[in-house]
Amino acid sequence: MAAFPQSLTYPNFGFDILARDQNSFARLGKISTPHGTIETPNFIFVGTKATVKNLHPAQMREAGADMILSNTYHLYIQPGPDLVQKMGGLHKFMGWDGPMLTDSGGFQIFSLGTGSGADEIKGKGKSGNKSLIRIDEQDGAIFKSYKDGSICRLNPEISMDVQRKLGADFVVQMDECTPQSADRDYTEKSMQMSHRWGDRSLTAFEQTHDGTQAVYGVVQGGVYRDLREESADYTASRPFFGTAVGGCLGGTKVHFYEILSWLPKRLHPERPVHLLGIGKIEDIFEGVKSGMDTFDCVTPTREARHGRALMKGARGGFINLLNSRFKDDPNPLDETLGLASSALYSRAYIHHLLKAGEMLVFQILSQHNVAVISRLMREIRATLKNGGDLNQLQKEWLSE
Amino acid sequence: MAAFPQSLTYPNFGFDILARDQNSFARLGKISTPHGTIETPNFIFVGTKATVKNLHPAQMREAGADMILSNTYHLYIQPGPDLVQKMGGLHKFMGWDGPMLTDSGGFQIFSLGTGSGADEIKGKGKSGNKSLIRIDEQDGAIFKSYKDGSICRLNPEISMDVQRKLGADFVVQMDECTPQSADRDYTEKSMQMSHRWGDRSLTAFEQTHDGTQAVYGVVQGGVYRDLREESADYTASRPFFGTAVGGCLGGTKVHFYEILSWLPKRLHPERPVHLLGIGKIEDIFEGVKSGMDTFDCVTPTREARHGRALMKGARGGFINLLNSRFKDDPNPLDETLGLASSALYSRAYIHHLLKAGEMLVFQILSQHNVAVISRLMREIRATLKNGGDLNQLQKEWLSE
Repeated sequence: MAAFPQSLTYPNFGFDILARDQNSFARLGKISTPHGTIETPNFIFVGTKATVKNLHPAQMREAGADMILSNTYHLYIQPGPDLVQKMGGLHKFMGWDGPMLTDSGGFQIFSLGTGSGADEIKGKGKSGNKSLIRIDEQDGAIFKSYKDGSICRLNPEISMDVQRKLGADFVVQMDECTPQSADRDYTEKSMQMSHRWGDRSLTAFEQTHDGTQAVYGVVQGGVYRDLREESADYTASRPFFGTAVGGCLGGTKVHFYEILSWLPKRLHPERPVHLLGIGKIEDIFEGVKSGMDTFDCVTPTREARHGRALMKGARGGFINLLNSRFKDDPNPLDETLGLASSALYSRAYIHHLLKAGEMLVFQILSQHNVAVISRLMREIRATLKNGGDLNQLQKEWLSE
Repeated sequence: MAAFPQSLTYPNFGFDILARDQNSFARLGKISTPHGTIETPNFIFVGTKATVKNLHPAQMREAGADMILSNTYHLYIQPGPDLVQKMGGLHKFMGWDGPMLTDSGGFQIFSLGTGSGADEIKGKGKSGNKSLIRIDEQDGAIFKSYKDGSICRLNPEISMDVQRKLGADFVVQMDECTPQSADRDYTEKSMQMSHRWGDRSLTAFEQTHDGTQAVYGVVQGGVYRDLREESADYTASRPFFGTAVGGCLGGTKVHFYEILSWLPKRLHPERPVHLLGIGKIEDIFEGVKSGMDTFDCVTPTREARHGRALMKGARGGFINLLNSRFKDDPNPLDETLGLASSALYSRAYIHHLLKAGEMLVFQILSQHNVAVISRLMREIRATLKNGGDLNQLQKEWLSE
């Protein structure tokens, strides 16, 4: 086994657990960073290419967002980490002064690159795009840039270097994200490689560690309980600041929630836990109850681009504004959100903008959806603060 | 000749000339409407389908915009005037509480519909899309809806009815907009038909006139001085609130400015004059000097969608952010505009967003461009207020 730092200190960071739920592993906490403190459970909104699609940072703030995630893979390809560093880092580059996280880039390479598909990891079948050329434990992943076809490489050392240059508060160790189609043997070997990559990530992180960033380890192990537990133990044994849960979380909701249930007792109890790429309302509730502190997903802005407005209590958690029943609906989306996007415009107007292909609508719906998810997280925190019933809140949000 | 109202009163509207330029026909004025008073010269930003592309009304205000125009033709096709009326009219529908104008719909039908092309009217050659089936003086224009292929009709009575339902402060008489390819004979006959349509528009307008709207007549006559003068005399002889100048304004800048020079002495001297569809910076200066009070054009938002930022003093009046020289330019677009879109982001970031196809960039550039044109109009008004030199200001704006 390669060497790894026995300990790392994160003087500018902190995680405090302020309250615990009586009936689940849910916990109220706060995470401190050089860019401010956020309360947890919380949602990290995805700004893939250094922008949350269609929204200014000020619009994110107005909608109640606390934290943003950007994708190392995409920024590595374009505009490149050196350019972002030269422009003062990701916060300054995109104009967001709150906490940020970058992922390791592994998820995109393995899920987009092998044709295994990001969707499959969440249980939705296969996609066909292949840009991954080769995976090699030492060299890492060799892949083709979708920008210009040039050959790129990402391994633990490169990922940590890229993430250092991007300059988010939180960075994530390099890992391989295994798809659902991976069998036990592949999943186990891949997990063990991810652990070795975790050690290399920590070593690389330590070399330039200056207190401005903190690093998360990643729990892999697919759908296999003993592997998940082994991976949880691995991350707990290393001086990561936080724990991220990644990889395939099962093909069904039931399976997903079962996998989550294995984790709370094995994860490092004093570290913040981030559930990677999960953001549906029902999944957030189950995640919170399993001790997850933060979530990220493209759902709020992607749903907006499909004409959908997230809505507390609506069947499925959203309404589809393309539906002709909204054609002459004079009601706004939700006046109680305190947001012009949700209060100024009638559903009829939003329906019209969608039909007319007018881009303002994606701004309206994206901001509304960010505000709805931000409110969801606020209400979850308030319930934990007041010793309330999370299951009751879950019922209010999901009418089914 | 058909009957027409001998007089119309506009108790809720006003136009006052506050100062005049010593060296041109330029004038400082103010236009009062039920939705507020604006100073002139001013720019009416185009919100074609009841939205200025990519911008919230609040973002328009923040950028200094005073007035918005929407297109009768597009709203007639979708979502339809009855729906807009049911939703409380255009102001409420789109959330803009300032003055608004709708055009007659004629421009789109004739320019988009015959394949003569909107561009050709401004001297840029032909386009090929044909949706116009037939023009008939009595029935009006029969055309095919681009939405569903259904057969639509627009004549003076329908146009005024549609514009009444849309409910903008200012409406425009139905006219035929002749292209550059029209010869003198066609232009003359068309102009005479437009005059008769003007009378029918006034008659239709009077029937439901309730003081909430005011109507503009349109000067046609193409590139022929005697026809332009005859058309100016026609509009001055009718009880229109304002005068709009439409139709082909010549194939070259020199020709355009010559046509403008014929008008100041023949237009009704106490009415506001709107120059339809013109919005380039140099053309605005020439228009102002010819006594034009308001302008409209899609330029600010369309240029944004091509990656261009309007800029005082830049060659051609803009910079193209797609240009690789901006790749690592840390400067914002223009910090002096007092706008996050123009001050928060580096040109390098905007270049990145354009390269990445990220939609936020169209919001940033659109708002910036609206702010630049709004500043241009403010500076023109300040120059007129202070008895300054418009030609000097024009030199500052256009470096060539």
